[in-house]
Amino acid sequence: MARVRMSDVAAAAGVSTATVSMVLSGAGTDRISPQTQARVRAAAEAIGYAPNSVARSLRTQRTRMIGLISDTIATTPFAGRMLAGANDAAREHGYLVVLVNTDDDEAQEQQAIRALTGQRVDAMVYARMWHRVVKVPAGLPADTVFLDCRPAQGGWPAVVPDDRQGGVAATRELVAAGHRRIAYVDAPEQDDVVASRLRHQGYLQVLAEAGIAPDPALHVRGRTDAWGGRAATAELLDLPAERRPTAVFCFNDRMAMGAYTAAHHRGLSIPGDLSIVGYDDQQLIAAELDPPLTTVALPHYEMGRWAMEVALGLRESDRDSPLLMDCPMIRRDSVGPPPIPAGN
Amino acid sequence: MARVRMSDVAAAAGVSTATVSMVLSGAGTDRISPQTQARVRAAAEAIGYAPNSVARSLRTQRTRMIGLISDTIATTPFAGRMLAGANDAAREHGYLVVLVNTDDDEAQEQQAIRALTGQRVDAMVYARMWHRVVKVPAGLPADTVFLDCRPAQGGWPAVVPDDRQGGVAATRELVAAGHRRIAYVDAPEQDDVVASRLRHQGYLQVLAEAGIAPDPALHVRGRTDAWGGRAATAELLDLPAERRPTAVFCFNDRMAMGAYTAAHHRGLSIPGDLSIVGYDDQQLIAAELDPPLTTVALPHYEMGRWAMEVALGLRESDRDSPLLMDCPMIRRDSVGPPPIPAGN
Repeated sequence: MARVRMSDVAAAAGVSTATVSMVLSGAGTDRISPQTQARVRAAAEAIGYAPNSVARSLRTQRTRMIGLISDTIATTPFAGRMLAGANDAAREHGYLVVLVNTDDDEAQEQQAIRALTGQRVDAMVYARMWHRVVKVPAGLPADTVFLDCRPAQGGWPAVVPDDRQGGVAATRELVAAGHRRIAYVDAPEQDDVVASRLRHQGYLQVLAEAGIAPDPALHVRGRTDAWGGRAATAELLDLPAERRPTAVFCFNDRMAMGAYTAAHHRGLSIPGDLSIVGYDDQQLIAAELDPPLTTVALPHYEMGRWAMEVALGLRESDRDSPLLMDCPMIRRDSVGPPPIPAGN
Repeated sequence: MARVRMSDVAAAAGVSTATVSMVLSGAGTDRISPQTQARVRAAAEAIGYAPNSVARSLRTQRTRMIGLISDTIATTPFAGRMLAGANDAAREHGYLVVLVNTDDDEAQEQQAIRALTGQRVDAMVYARMWHRVVKVPAGLPADTVFLDCRPAQGGWPAVVPDDRQGGVAATRELVAAGHRRIAYVDAPEQDDVVASRLRHQGYLQVLAEAGIAPDPALHVRGRTDAWGGRAATAELLDLPAERRPTAVFCFNDRMAMGAYTAAHHRGLSIPGDLSIVGYDDQQLIAAELDPPLTTVALPHYEMGRWAMEVALGLRESDRDSPLLMDCPMIRRDSVGPPPIPAGN
């Protein structure tokens, strides 16, 4: 690639290359007039001069780049708002985020860590697509911030969604609307998917507070997509009338999308016959379902911002326990009162 | 950040630092036994040695990193498969993709270009989230490959989806099923969204081939989401019975999702009463609708691979006109014969 050189900037500004070097490195500028400095910067900008940061960073040890290592966030449609939050926070402070996607592959991850530390990024963020417990990869710099994952050992700044509180919020929304027979359409049992268990704890807590005895038949599981949600909801709707739920809390919005289909296939209207709450506030789905879905938002953008602000040293963090970020309730049109007095 | 040094590798492998340097740089290795070379590499791997690429790249001028500049691909749920294709191709050849997201902001873009050229990436890919014509940004290296966008001037390798062919495929699918009254639910008119116009041309071409006079009432437009698709389809279903379409080709899958809702609200079944074809094969939507949506796929993954292979010098490209990548038909369950003989 043909590169613009410092001598080109010098020629354009009518100064020596030594002057260009001093102005652009910020060293010895007290001997150069502000007018000349401005002229050099304008010339560099105009002809697209990229300072040789490879050589320069040997001197200054600062690159103003933040490395962000992620598993599959950038290549899947689930959690891109985390990257948006991290990017926005970095940009506001003049930093550039360089992102490497590792496909959740350990060898790739090691290559990424070596490349980014080799490039001397000023800080690092380690992000996962969903809330899970992770082994800390070898070679991560000591100040790395964990985003949407919780390192198995303490000592690292980390942020994850407060999935228990989210389960509480979803279930309370349904109790407040008058429901007593509330089902939880859960993800498959998997040890490292923390969210499923935590949301279930939140659900049980609210039932207990409301004096509702949990019915094991109302805790069903399915694949975490529309097909899984549809099948699991169909199971619930097959229960005898007196045990059937009047409201369903779904592990995620894709499963809720399937719950809509299961309801439609039996001629049930939402929320007239069945109230539904999702989780994620998934772009493309939640707001565009008919009726628009009431759901609990994953605070992806806010978590991304927080992680970047900690990485930039703008924010304190407790290294002994991850920050639990609030999951706000997004009220749309899929929750209403139960179709008949729930009795009890 | 505490760094592992070359002397640590030398100690671990029981060789001199000069030997480590030769092995890891690949220079002068003919004088070192394969066994010793393997031992040095294993030691470097085991203790997590990151070669100081800042210093090293001054000597070798190779970083084995490819810069990928994108507008909002990584932060939105639409085109992440492009990044997956580019990542996979790079990884297979031992390269690492470093991605910078610019939010479609010119100043951000300039900062990204300067940073990546300053870091001496070996090649660069410039990607957009959707098919559009772009002004070539200042400072892009001469060999930059354009991904999902077409530079306003020639002279650059580029790949875009063949949207005209996709419009042809979608409309042929409906003609082949026996439809004659086929609507096109289009995006709003916008100069830089090339896809809308090209797909419309494909649609008109097939109607002409089939001897069907285009009815302007069957070309409607709406916002490119479920709400827009629903409103535009409702317009079509309000037409008098003899002018009403029996099939709808939608600009994208989100609009098709809205077309489903419009049909359900009138008690029309899909495909019994109305056949629907989408575009994008959008993850989270197309395969999960009820019934699953027949659609035209955007070849995001394949375009990402192609662009990376050109950037790596593994593939030739015609710099005078962009490669038009085929958009394959994905047959699911939303197309059937028209409800009554279409007459004509």
